[in-house]
Parts: sequence; C-alpha cells; structure tokens
Amino acid sequence: MLQISKRGIDMPASPIRKLVPFAEAAKKRGTKVYHLNIGQPDIETPKMVLDAVRHSDFKVLEYSHSAGNESYRKKLVGYYKTVGIDVNEKQIIITTGGSEAILFGFMACLDAGDEVIIPEPFYANYNGFAVEAGVTVVPITSYIENGFALPPIEDIEAKITPRTKAIVICNPNNPTGYLYSAAEMEQLKNIILKHNLYLFSDEAYREFCYEGTQISALHLTGVDDHVVIMDTISKRYSACGGRIGAFITKNQALLDATMKFAQARLSPPSFAQIAGEAAIDLPANYFDDTKAEYKSRRDLIVTRLNAMEGVFCPNPGGAFYAIAKLPIDDADTFCQWLLEDFAFENQTVMLAPATGFYGTPGLGKQEVRLAYVLNLEDINKAMDCLEAALKVYPGLIK
Amino acid sequence: MLQISKRGIDMPASPIRKLVPFAEAAKKRGTKVYHLNIGQPDIETPKMVLDAVRHSDFKVLEYSHSAGNESYRKKLVGYYKTVGIDVNEKQIIITTGGSEAILFGFMACLDAGDEVIIPEPFYANYNGFAVEAGVTVVPITSYIENGFALPPIEDIEAKITPRTKAIVICNPNNPTGYLYSAAEMEQLKNIILKHNLYLFSDEAYREFCYEGTQISALHLTGVDDHVVIMDTISKRYSACGGRIGAFITKNQALLDATMKFAQARLSPPSFAQIAGEAAIDLPANYFDDTKAEYKSRRDLIVTRLNAMEGVFCPNPGGAFYAIAKLPIDDADTFCQWLLEDFAFENQTVMLAPATGFYGTPGLGKQEVRLAYVLNLEDINKAMDCLEAALKVYPGLIK
Repeated sequence: MLQISKRGIDMPASPIRKLVPFAEAAKKRGTKVYHLNIGQPDIETPKMVLDAVRHSDFKVLEYSHSAGNESYRKKLVGYYKTVGIDVNEKQIIITTGGSEAILFGFMACLDAGDEVIIPEPFYANYNGFAVEAGVTVVPITSYIENGFALPPIEDIEAKITPRTKAIVICNPNNPTGYLYSAAEMEQLKNIILKHNLYLFSDEAYREFCYEGTQISALHLTGVDDHVVIMDTISKRYSACGGRIGAFITKNQALLDATMKFAQARLSPPSFAQIAGEAAIDLPANYFDDTKAEYKSRRDLIVTRLNAMEGVFCPNPGGAFYAIAKLPIDDADTFCQWLLEDFAFENQTVMLAPATGFYGTPGLGKQEVRLAYVLNLEDINKAMDCLEAALKVYPGLIK
Repeated sequence: MLQISKRGIDMPASPIRKLVPFAEAAKKRGTKVYHLNIGQPDIETPKMVLDAVRHSDFKVLEYSHSAGNESYRKKLVGYYKTVGIDVNEKQIIITTGGSEAILFGFMACLDAGDEVIIPEPFYANYNGFAVEAGVTVVPITSYIENGFALPPIEDIEAKITPRTKAIVICNPNNPTGYLYSAAEMEQLKNIILKHNLYLFSDEAYREFCYEGTQISALHLTGVDDHVVIMDTISKRYSACGGRIGAFITKNQALLDATMKFAQARLSPPSFAQIAGEAAIDLPANYFDDTKAEYKSRRDLIVTRLNAMEGVFCPNPGGAFYAIAKLPIDDADTFCQWLLEDFAFENQTVMLAPATGFYGTPGLGKQEVRLAYVLNLEDINKAMDCLEAALKVYPGLIK
C-alpha cells in the first residue's frame, strides 16, 4: 500500500471549510445561509484595478522577475511611504498571496524542529505552513476577557526555548480583530532583541483600523534585521483571487536566501501584478469609504451580539473579524447545528468555530469568529438568526 | 546574529539566472545577446486566451475554489480526453504553476529524509523543491551518448533504498528533450509496482513531440494509485506568467491529503484560470503551427551544432531544449566567457551550463543546454556566434 507522508497526514484540514457540505445541504433544502464564516469581502474590487488588467496589451504572458515586476516594486515603495514604512524596491519580494510570504519566512528562517511563538487564537493556515516547513507552533493564549490583547511579556518569555526562532503576529488580527498598541509593539521589540528572534508581522489588514492606526513592525527602530512583513493585496483592495502578496525585510542575508525560494517557483502571477500596480494609483481617500463601511458593520455586529443574553463580544480595533463568546456547550457542534437543524424564517447563519484558531486543544469551545463581510441589512438578518438560535439550541449553557 | 535556516543556506540558487549580471554587462557594452538560456518561449500567447481575461466582467476578484474553478476543471477533463488521459474533475487540483504541483507531490508523498530518484540531467528546480520538503534527490545518470535515454533498469534499482518513495520523470524532458519510449514507460511501471513507489510525471511539454507521441504516465495501466501528473499551461500556450498548473492523480487518499495543502494557500490565481479555461477551446490544430515551428528550430539547431568541430548534439524527440557536448574545459567558465570576453560581429549567445542540471558533482562540465525559443534567423546568428567562439575560446580541448 502506498503511503501518504506523515506531514500529509498531519496537515490540518481547513477548519473554516469543513462545514461547507452542511451549508450546501441547507441551501439545497431552500434555506438562505448568511456567510459570516469566511474572509472573502463583498466589497467590489476597484474598477480601475480590474481595468488595468483588462486594458493590458502585451502579446506574450511571460514569466516576470522572480521578485515581481520592478515597476510594481518601485511603485510599492511609494505606497509604503504613505503608511510610514521606508523600504526600497530591493527589499520587497512579490509573492503569490500573503500565503507564500508566510511560507517563505518559515522556510528561510526556521528549520524542521524549530519553534515559532504565535499568540492564539491565530490565523489557522499558519498551522498548515508550519507543517509544510516542519516547524512547531507554540501557542501563547490571549483572552477574550481583555479583547485578546498581547499576552503578558513573562508568559511569552516562558515559552522561549533554544529552538525558538520567531514570533508571528497578525496586526490588526485575524481572527480577533485586535489592534496591537504602541506599547505592545515596544514589548515585542524588546523580546525579539533580548532573545534574538525574528518578528513576522502579517499586516494584511493594515488600512482597516477603527480605533487609532496600525503600528507596523517596520515602524519599530533598531530591529531592521529582525522584522519581516507579510503583506497582501487580497483584503486591501478586495482582490483575494489575484494571489499577490509581498515579503518585506531589510535583512539582506534573509532577502538573498528568500530570493532562492522565489526563483525556484519562477515568478508570481503576471496578470494580478498589473492589478496590484494599478491599485497604488487609487486616490488617497480610497480607503475612507471602505473603512467607513466596515466600521458601521463592526459597530452593528458588536452591538447586536452584546445585546444577546449570555453573549460577549469585545470591540475589535481593526480588520473585519470579531470573536464572540456564546452560552453554548461546543462551538463546532453549534455551528453545524445552525446549518443542519436550525432555521429562522427559512434563514440561517454560517459561523466559524473558534476552536480551529487555537493551538491549545480544548480552547475556544464557546467562541465563534464572525467575518463582517456582508452589508448592514444582511448582518442584521444574520444576527436575527443567531439571536433566535440562542433561544432554542439544545446545548445552551445558562 | 540572526541566522538563516539551514535549508535557506542549502537552497540552490538558480543555475540559469546566475549568469544574468554578465549578460546585462554585455548589453550595456552594446553587445547583442541571443538568449538560448531560458525556457521562456517567444511564441505569442493565443489572442483568444488573453482576450478571455480582458473581456471578463466580474466585479469582485474572489478566491476561487482551492482546487481551482470547477468550470475549468470540467473543461480540462475534455482536454485530457483528447490526449488519451481519462480523469474526472475531482482528480484534478489546479496549482500555481507546475512548480506548485511538484512541491505538493513532494510534500504529500515524502517526509524529510525520504528519497526521490530522478534521472539526471534534470530540471534544476526539482532540487529547490526537494530542499523545501527536506527530501533527498538521488540522481541516476543518463548519458548524452545515447541521447539521454532512460538509464538501465538495474542502475535504477540499485539506487532504491527503504527511504525511496518516488521516481520523477519529465517527459518530454527538460533539459534533454528526450522523449521516453513506450518500452521505457513500461519499465518504469514495473519498477514502481515492484518497489511500491510513486511515479511523478512532469508533462509540461506533452504536445511538443517531433518523433512519435508522448506516452503519459496515466496511459499506463494498473498503476493508477502510483501516478501523479504535474502539468502546466506555461509552455503549452506560451502562458508562463499565468502561473497555472495542475496536480492530477487517481489516488483518492493522495488527493485528500493534497487538498489540505491546496486549502492552506487558499486558491490558485483567478485571472489566469480564465485564460487556462479559454485555452481548452483553441482549435484542434492549434498545436500544429507551434509544433512545426519548434521542429524547424530543432532541426536547424541540431544540424548547426553537429556541423561544428568537436560538437555532439543528440536529436531531441520533444520539448524545446537540446543538450550539446562541446570541446571545452568547463561549461560554467565557457558560458561566462561568452558573455564577458567574447563577441562575434558585436553579438554573442547566452547558454545554460549543464552542470546545474546534474545532481552528481562534476558531471556536465562539457555540456550546455540550449532552449530553442528564438526564431530561425536568430538561432542561425546565435549558432554563428557559438561556432566562432569555439575557434578562439582559450579553454578548448581538442
């Protein structure tokens, strides 16, 4: 019998996608399903971004430079300047989505058996990339009670071993929406300096901050060699399908190593690089509308959630996610029940059980993640469903 | 001091791209450089393929299914039927280039320390993906004297250990152009059955066969669970920048495992999937012209090479590469010398030293790979340069 590799077995299935068959069955029964489970924005991709691809006039769809088109990287330098990040085009490697930037970081900085510390709950696919790289994820728990703030510095330090090579943060955070404060970023700086670690900062949601602004890891001073930014155009311009991201560091040795990984896969996608480059020319106020829309949604969803009996949802500072604690026995069972056994006015809601975002087994069993990627009307209807469900779910805990 | 990972150090730099600075310097001096060094076809991407993207009218550039758009996979089923491969849309995972299909195969079938046997010379980036997966490449030498035919079965078997999990072939071959015979494919079938191995078959150049037709690994009977095809639209439709490939197997357990890797990176690029899907509708005779063009080029380049004193170039059966043995001391030195110290009528030629395609140190020192991706006139001029160079190169071996 032919064997699958151990890592093929260890590779986690997507915790978000495992409920899909139940959602499909619900739809077949004629039930309307509100999708708050995935981070696919409903916001339209800016027309000028799509038009740049549609009006392109090359004759051969060629490989680009392995680091991405130089013209695009040069324009990105200007974009980063607008958010207070001073990099040059040689410090940017265009990647196939933020996903590849994360994988490159794990591959180039950590060996099999090395450890990476990640505050949990965290973006579930970090687990997958860690399995691919043979890296051990060491979760450090953040808590809903204080809005998922950075865990105390001594808790983080207690997890550091000789195999620890990096700390990963996502800021603002997916799945919690937490926006790290300047003081927390300084604490991280001190830790990475003291213990000689890399800081991988996933800044996919940089623009979507509703309380203050984001402190980028590249705003920190004196840690240039330590910091890697994993970036993506997916959420910023609602361009998830483009699969364009960026790996950014000022560490020359790391850039040189990472370029070898980039060369092995030849180049990032050519069409979407055109889209990404065009996006830099969006008017300076482009994010105002999008941000205002997301903020209204956040305000609505958080208000609605906290008005439900036994529900607690901290107010997220950024991104477009919220985690809520529900009076339920088991989030996985509940989310499946919502799709399989429940309907309110022939409608139901699809949520992501938070268990999939924790590295520590058993955590998150009363929590769900909600992505506010639907319009206000739909969010209201989805919250009506959830409110009704929390009156009749058999596994309620009072 | 922060460290690069061991695999970041072990990761090979592209053997093809390391001469680029010398080519750039030559161009700055005003020397015309004929690029026979890389597999970027000059053939135009079919207009209808590019137009499909340009005329697309969606409003949100969304994630696709992690396995790729179902509509595309369903059309691919029809394409594969035309080349005698019977698969359904659930046996196809669309990948980000053929590169990702290879990486997925290594990741899902092999663990760190496992071994994969590859006839050398081989596509250099297999090395990179092997480093990423912690897999050991065990080269088995094929020889220019017999046109790089499959090494004798007993040579292959002698390399098999308990850690051997797979054999990789590229057919027709990059870099040799060799087209495996039906008898050789049967021999491979017997080995993988006898030793319970996977057969990874990179079939990027399937359509470009000039002596007979390709035997796909999926034409073999009784080995469905063993075979994985790594495919790509890059060369087929001159669409390298799209970054669209495919991982194809009938092994359900392997499909399930590979889907987890596909889910972790969310989805393949959306724009180029539209291009790939449109390409299926190209007229049945689309490849006739392209193939005729490549065949003329092959005939010319092989004839010109063999007419040079001390040069031997076997006639490749497919793809658009040839490897030639030259009367030189060292291919790396020679290829650099061509760019740095030589010009013929203010022109020179860029070749790929074959050393980068061998896993065994020291092999290929008298060999170069030529990609015939230029038109006949340019190939003639490039051969004029090479012919002149082989009269004056200081490291000639008579």
